[in-house]
Amino acid sequence: MLREHTIEFRVRYQETDAQGRVHHANYLTWYEMGRVELLRAMGHSYRDFEATGLLLVIAEMNAKYYLPASYDDLLTLTTRTVRAKGARIEHHYQVHLGKDLLAEATSIVACIDRTGKVRRLPEWLRTE
Amino acid sequence: MLREHTIEFRVRYQETDAQGRVHHANYLTWYEMGRVELLRAMGHSYRDFEATGLLLVIAEMNAKYYLPASYDDLLTLTTRTVRAKGARIEHHYQVHLGKDLLAEATSIVACIDRTGKVRRLPEWLRTE
Amino acid sequence: MLREHTIEFRVRYQETDAQGRVHHANYLTWYEMGRVELLRAMGHSYRDFEATGLLLVIAEMNAKYYLPASYDDLLTLTTRTVRAKGARIEHHYQVHLGKDLLAEATSIVACIDRTGKVRRLPEWLRTE
Amino acid sequence: MLREHTIEFRVRYQETDAQGRVHHANYLTWYEMGRVELLRAMGHSYRDFEATGLLLVIAEMNAKYYLPASYDDLLTLTTRTVRAKGARIEHHYQVHLGKDLLAEATSIVACIDRTGKVRRLPEWLRTE
Repeated sequence: MLREHTIEFRVRYQETDAQGRVHHANYLTWYEMGRVELLRAMGHSYRDFEATGLLLVIAEMNAKYYLPASYDDLLTLTTRTVRAKGARIEHHYQVHLGKDLLAEATSIVACIDRTGKVRRLPEWLRTE
Repeated sequence: MLREHTIEFRVRYQETDAQGRVHHANYLTWYEMGRVELLRAMGHSYRDFEATGLLLVIAEMNAKYYLPASYDDLLTLTTRTVRAKGARIEHHYQVHLGKDLLAEATSIVACIDRTGKVRRLPEWLRTE
Repeated sequence: MLREHTIEFRVRYQETDAQGRVHHANYLTWYEMGRVELLRAMGHSYRDFEATGLLLVIAEMNAKYYLPASYDDLLTLTTRTVRAKGARIEHHYQVHLGKDLLAEATSIVACIDRTGKVRRLPEWLRTE
Repeated sequence: MLREHTIEFRVRYQETDAQGRVHHANYLTWYEMGRVELLRAMGHSYRDFEATGLLLVIAEMNAKYYLPASYDDLLTLTTRTVRAKGARIEHHYQVHLGKDLLAEATSIVACIDRTGKVRRLPEWLRTE
């Protein structure tokens, strides 16, 4: 099972703020892209996953910011599944500009259904 | 029937971009707040409106930008219903900082149901 | 001089709203990406352009929305320079999902300097 | 010195996503509003603070999400300064809908200057 995947993307102008750097909230949107593209690289689609009636929702996000990203920077984001067990998946993320580590984070997503009830992850998503 | 309503709000840091001013896309979010608060001032709730199975979706937006808004500016937004007839509502918006007109726009929203089918506006929303 | 350029990108989850479709304000962010990538395809960088002390700011945006875009849709955006003369550039945009035209728009950007003064476009940007 | 401040605000439609709830990245924008309004309640303006050449930037954000927020919810956000010492401020945040705690977080902001150099907090911002 694929556990790690790297994507590359450019910083959009709209993602910057008046400090001239990327606003920190946008990293969470990037981490979400990382999870989605890791899933796609595994041969799955998060859209299809939601079509089965399940949702993955963020329960916890621990983010560290080391160096600023700027408009038009070509960034790489590596997303890794640390553990996927029961109803929860733990991911780890690193954002690089060239060799510089700009930011990293870990998050916990929980699997629920449309009524909000916690649900076991489908087997193909579990790491153990 | 109330046709015009003014709200006041502060520019959020996240709404600025690296030019040091508000990113132009955020005005559309403000115009949406203007429509929602005009509805509330009329004694209605857009949330309740959607609960009836109808949606209002933007069909057209014509926006002009005259002067920049900055972080922490206390802005006023006046939203006016120009016409609400059939399945469409035309609104007009003006954003001021003090006496300065920063931006204005007109938009057309269309009334549809959850299947995407165009639906007549409920009578209480129509101006004619 | 290159006048038209097409990019492809995926809809991010964060770009959707509770109607289950893309929030209309995000199209403006995409149109901005279109302008930037058209410039890059012409051999220029908007980041370098701003480093010369000039800015391009949106003066007018006229946007039409025909069909909704959904999460994970792979969209194409074609950006065309209609006219670039004096201090203003007019662009035209079309967003397609496969053969379906979802939205189109025209915009006017104005060239200013850091003090807000209107400035003539550099010659390499002018179409006439 | 004022250490805690509560604000009230409504969820914007644009802040929701296709899950029908608020996208988790928006809480970071709200927490930023909380810091700014706590400062204002203390008699200071973050805009004026930046005008002195200093910036506060997010170094760390640890966020927990317990219950979803929905469009049009009237939320309260309580922001508290846990500690402000040296070049760093630690804040704690809680978001409630009525009596329900929807989310909470702690963050570290660092004080830097325009060159990115870490700078001591001005005395009026320090708690010790």
